[in-house]
Amino acid sequence: MTDNNSENYWITNGNTVTIKRLFQPIYQKTEHTGNKVTVVGVGQVGMAAVFSMLTQGVTNNIALVDVMEDKLRGEMMDLQHGAAFMKSCKIQASKDYSISAGSKICVVTAGVRQREGESRLDLVQRNTDILKIIIPQLVKYSPDAVFIIASNPVDILTYVTWRISGLPKHRVIGSGTNLDSARFRYLLSEKLGIAPTSCHGYIIGEHGDTSVPIWSGVNIAGVRLSDLNSKIGSEEDSEQWRQMHEKVVKSAYEVIKLKGYTSWAIGLSLSQLVWAILSDASSVHPVSTYIKGMHGIEQDVFLSLPCALGHRGISDVILQTLTDKELTQLRKSAKLMAQIQAGIKF
Amino acid sequence: MTDNNSENYWITNGNTVTIKRLFQPIYQKTEHTGNKVTVVGVGQVGMAAVFSMLTQGVTNNIALVDVMEDKLRGEMMDLQHGAAFMKSCKIQASKDYSISAGSKICVVTAGVRQREGESRLDLVQRNTDILKIIIPQLVKYSPDAVFIIASNPVDILTYVTWRISGLPKHRVIGSGTNLDSARFRYLLSEKLGIAPTSCHGYIIGEHGDTSVPIWSGVNIAGVRLSDLNSKIGSEEDSEQWRQMHEKVVKSAYEVIKLKGYTSWAIGLSLSQLVWAILSDASSVHPVSTYIKGMHGIEQDVFLSLPCALGHRGISDVILQTLTDKELTQLRKSAKLMAQIQAGIKF
Amino acid sequence: MTDNNSENYWITNGNTVTIKRLFQPIYQKTEHTGNKVTVVGVGQVGMAAVFSMLTQGVTNNIALVDVMEDKLRGEMMDLQHGAAFMKSCKIQASKDYSISAGSKICVVTAGVRQREGESRLDLVQRNTDILKIIIPQLVKYSPDAVFIIASNPVDILTYVTWRISGLPKHRVIGSGTNLDSARFRYLLSEKLGIAPTSCHGYIIGEHGDTSVPIWSGVNIAGVRLSDLNSKIGSEEDSEQWRQMHEKVVKSAYEVIKLKGYTSWAIGLSLSQLVWAILSDASSVHPVSTYIKGMHGIEQDVFLSLPCALGHRGISDVILQTLTDKELTQLRKSAKLMAQIQAGIKF
Amino acid sequence: MTDNNSENYWITNGNTVTIKRLFQPIYQKTEHTGNKVTVVGVGQVGMAAVFSMLTQGVTNNIALVDVMEDKLRGEMMDLQHGAAFMKSCKIQASKDYSISAGSKICVVTAGVRQREGESRLDLVQRNTDILKIIIPQLVKYSPDAVFIIASNPVDILTYVTWRISGLPKHRVIGSGTNLDSARFRYLLSEKLGIAPTSCHGYIIGEHGDTSVPIWSGVNIAGVRLSDLNSKIGSEEDSEQWRQMHEKVVKSAYEVIKLKGYTSWAIGLSLSQLVWAILSDASSVHPVSTYIKGMHGIEQDVFLSLPCALGHRGISDVILQTLTDKELTQLRKSAKLMAQIQAGIKF
Repeated sequence: MTDNNSENYWITNGNTVTIKRLFQPIYQKTEHTGNKVTVVGVGQVGMAAVFSMLTQGVTNNIALVDVMEDKLRGEMMDLQHGAAFMKSCKIQASKDYSISAGSKICVVTAGVRQREGESRLDLVQRNTDILKIIIPQLVKYSPDAVFIIASNPVDILTYVTWRISGLPKHRVIGSGTNLDSARFRYLLSEKLGIAPTSCHGYIIGEHGDTSVPIWSGVNIAGVRLSDLNSKIGSEEDSEQWRQMHEKVVKSAYEVIKLKGYTSWAIGLSLSQLVWAILSDASSVHPVSTYIKGMHGIEQDVFLSLPCALGHRGISDVILQTLTDKELTQLRKSAKLMAQIQAGIKF
Repeated sequence: MTDNNSENYWITNGNTVTIKRLFQPIYQKTEHTGNKVTVVGVGQVGMAAVFSMLTQGVTNNIALVDVMEDKLRGEMMDLQHGAAFMKSCKIQASKDYSISAGSKICVVTAGVRQREGESRLDLVQRNTDILKIIIPQLVKYSPDAVFIIASNPVDILTYVTWRISGLPKHRVIGSGTNLDSARFRYLLSEKLGIAPTSCHGYIIGEHGDTSVPIWSGVNIAGVRLSDLNSKIGSEEDSEQWRQMHEKVVKSAYEVIKLKGYTSWAIGLSLSQLVWAILSDASSVHPVSTYIKGMHGIEQDVFLSLPCALGHRGISDVILQTLTDKELTQLRKSAKLMAQIQAGIKF
Repeated sequence: MTDNNSENYWITNGNTVTIKRLFQPIYQKTEHTGNKVTVVGVGQVGMAAVFSMLTQGVTNNIALVDVMEDKLRGEMMDLQHGAAFMKSCKIQASKDYSISAGSKICVVTAGVRQREGESRLDLVQRNTDILKIIIPQLVKYSPDAVFIIASNPVDILTYVTWRISGLPKHRVIGSGTNLDSARFRYLLSEKLGIAPTSCHGYIIGEHGDTSVPIWSGVNIAGVRLSDLNSKIGSEEDSEQWRQMHEKVVKSAYEVIKLKGYTSWAIGLSLSQLVWAILSDASSVHPVSTYIKGMHGIEQDVFLSLPCALGHRGISDVILQTLTDKELTQLRKSAKLMAQIQAGIKF
Repeated sequence: MTDNNSENYWITNGNTVTIKRLFQPIYQKTEHTGNKVTVVGVGQVGMAAVFSMLTQGVTNNIALVDVMEDKLRGEMMDLQHGAAFMKSCKIQASKDYSISAGSKICVVTAGVRQREGESRLDLVQRNTDILKIIIPQLVKYSPDAVFIIASNPVDILTYVTWRISGLPKHRVIGSGTNLDSARFRYLLSEKLGIAPTSCHGYIIGEHGDTSVPIWSGVNIAGVRLSDLNSKIGSEEDSEQWRQMHEKVVKSAYEVIKLKGYTSWAIGLSLSQLVWAILSDASSVHPVSTYIKGMHGIEQDVFLSLPCALGHRGISDVILQTLTDKELTQLRKSAKLMAQIQAGIKF
């Protein structure tokens, strides 16, 4: 912990007579990075992710980095005050990236939001300029870390992080459609009366409006809904299942309109991805990955596909059998990404 | 879920042909209250408590109540979108208290903050007026619930809740100094280099500025620090351990100044109390309880003492051996509480 | 806790002066059944199930029943000695079924094993005679409980329990092929290098040798392996995936041969089923259920199909689309079950 | 996983056409040791420890070593079959110690039991001979691991491990009186009606018959029972609290007599110690440590004292204020240990 953020600053001499009488020291304690995770950005998304990780036992070693020093210190203290209610945890915070040293994973939630009238490219450029400061510092202090990007537009900013960092593609991951898929599974669960964890379905492609639901894979206990209703998800379906995807797309906007931001679900999504990597789980999650060479994509872009996550990041991409319509949408997104990316100044 | 808050509203007929082909129904699902917990107030404290309870597996059945319908619906949706990342959970929300029916525990975090220039009594009266609306509704729908009050000033509002509800005193609990004690234990852990969960110490009395640290009980592995330093906690102590309590008192103000509010630690504190009650743990926590007849207190007031919590609330109070100075402080707080309470209009 | 099994027997008067000085009693503690689960049979399966439930936090309230009093008391004490290492738990044990009163779930693991030369019907009769003692006692003390049967042959003994208990079919469940399916998913995970929790596949029908793997539903991220290899699971498949099911069938025998019994995996399987019911999860698991009227089965038999489990037991059966071969096998098992059942004396 | 123990042996070529169609490989998966824990000895104690660690989420990476190859393979398979019921885990087993490579912690539960008529020294020598085989192999493959010894007589065998291994004393730990203390706290909880986790008390010294309960530190919420009853724990105490320690001593024998062995409580105790070390918790536990120079002990012996555990083992010993009687008992044990140790042939 850096001096100015430390809870210790008031202690001029930790080694009082009382303490000397209490302990027989055996070894000099040293920094232990263990399952350390750095989160950059202590806004609603970053803090929900941190709180998820701590309360779910995903990691007990968190470093927080932000430029807003007051907010940063306030969040650190608030978490530390809760330490007695958790099993064991270490919370550090600083605007200085040295605090992040030795992290297994760096989660980036920092970034600015779209201004009124601002073009998407202008937004991307502003966030790129921010990542140009953040990423090299993180790489410097945690050269072996896996990077998870949650800042929006997530697919492009994951590409930007990959470019800036110079890291191999398996170690740069966008949170992507892991959240969109969770929303989809929740809506399925509501309609079917079955637990979300037993409702299987993937939304892939670009995070947000142009995401692609893969209806052919939606199943309960291996029973594909498309085998029971061949038109499911299409405009011809009289049961209107495609409204479910429309609702997924709308729900991000709706939550922001209602409460001002989204936090809990994206925080849980990030916590799940961090868990999969730290525990070397080889579990499958739809996340934004370098997609060139797959599904006929020829651009240097990142889009979400189901990926197996392990301790070094993405080990495998699961190749779904896509319909022509799905492929068209995916390639359209890829083309758009590439166009925007072409305008970025690195 | 009430109609207007339901995620189901878009489904005109849940029982489509597809669904009929998928399932052989065996029994008609019915509402199951299980370990249902109602939280009134979806501000930062209420939501941190809810998120702690869900991620720590304390309950999987939450009802949210608030008067701010947009915020309420936004928080409900955000949690529901995260359902696929948790083991299983049910989130309901409404401004109508019927949603809370059959809760095992009701947690009240609602209330207004002190206005500039407002007297303490005026604040208490405004929050009493709010509780006069909330509490009878909660009691009506969950007549057997245990009530936990987190709204401030917590000791007085716990008394107010007890008065309004007409419930036996063991079923009305204030979150009290459970949080102050956790902050104290964290500071001890920082100074001693020992996990907060292995640093034992209690702060009792009034939550906040006039709380009372019981230095005689502070111990590590049963070793009392006061046996190693007889002046510990006093003004005469050259090691200045009493600064630790001063820091506890200041830290609430400091966190609010830095981040604008407190959330994570109080959320975890509430989650722990809910856990102890739901699991009938008989674990000991410093919470605000009806203290008349203990430690020479003669007023009808609520202050924090170490209490054993079980499924019906507080089963026992642990009677600490207090010094004259500690007793004086406790009685002074009791007197002040009684004075303020005398001015409340019910 | 009954007198003779209580840890308290040595305390002639719990209410010593010391204790009176320590506590101010607030309410008289009473029995709280909460999420109580009774397990009948403290052999390797029963105890692994109990230990799973306690360590995984599925329940913290266990009642053990067995006729072997020494073993029973030894297991109870051994668990109680571990209580300080868990969050909070209550362990009771007795040969008297009154100990089971108010359970939410009764898990039956008791039963005898096949003697050399004994016919299957003779074994079934012997275990039926045991269930005739156990089940009425359990029903008497926990008339609203859900029953899970793990004793073998599980499908027939689940039928027997249903007959003896007079309970509605949704409240009598056999552990069935939940374990077979887990073994199948583990083998898939080994072959594919993907986490078992991301390898989806169901084995249904009769638990054991004649179980039926549903290859058409085996999928990773919604990608059906049968779409990549149309002969998968069949004798014509050059990749020999059907060996995986053969290995599942053999593995029970192999583990028994190697270590003398199976315990951990079946214990975890039972813990999962108990969790789904206690938490009203509506999650889907392949368990033995009354199957008459589904898949063309006309007999009063129990066989495993994917079922949604909630607080009252099985709410829905998921109707898979089965091939002729799969249907044939299922109906053959049903016919065999019915034949054996016809010979049972109730 | 070594070839002959691998679940993979039946797969001649994992990379089938089906698999090639399913995956786009991104990086070559490599061994990840993570929080790997090796357990030597798959008897009841070793397996209860392993199952506790897996179900409590303490580690998800276990290597099992034993000389009984059948039993070893059976236990490995049984755990693997349960993998789909847990979050993610990796179970390996072999009689070859190379399987243990890169472990963070090695837990030794192997050893023989006392034969009828065998002297204690003869037993120690036989187990020393076994440790002479085990320990150098473990050190070879995991030179940075912390060692936890659970084999009996545990204090002497911890010394033996320290001698054989040549490791610094903070990295060799005996499970010691962590279990005795848990039994003590359970009995306190039964008598007081308070959760074991809220009943604080330590038993130190030699594990077993001559262990020393530190009555002066026994407290609830910082209230020392000895302040309420000055004779507590002594022969003069009319309330007979010392029976509680007698009962702790007897209970190990009683459980063995009743069920044939002890497993669950010792397994949970080991799981807790592993957790404290892996999570660098600095939590305090009574474990067997090199005690020379403390409490006037002058011999090279290991006995239990409250210790803070972190990622490198024991960082600090907590120095309790002992009575003359307690010191006498401790020194008597030390002397006896030293005598036995003098007779060991290394």
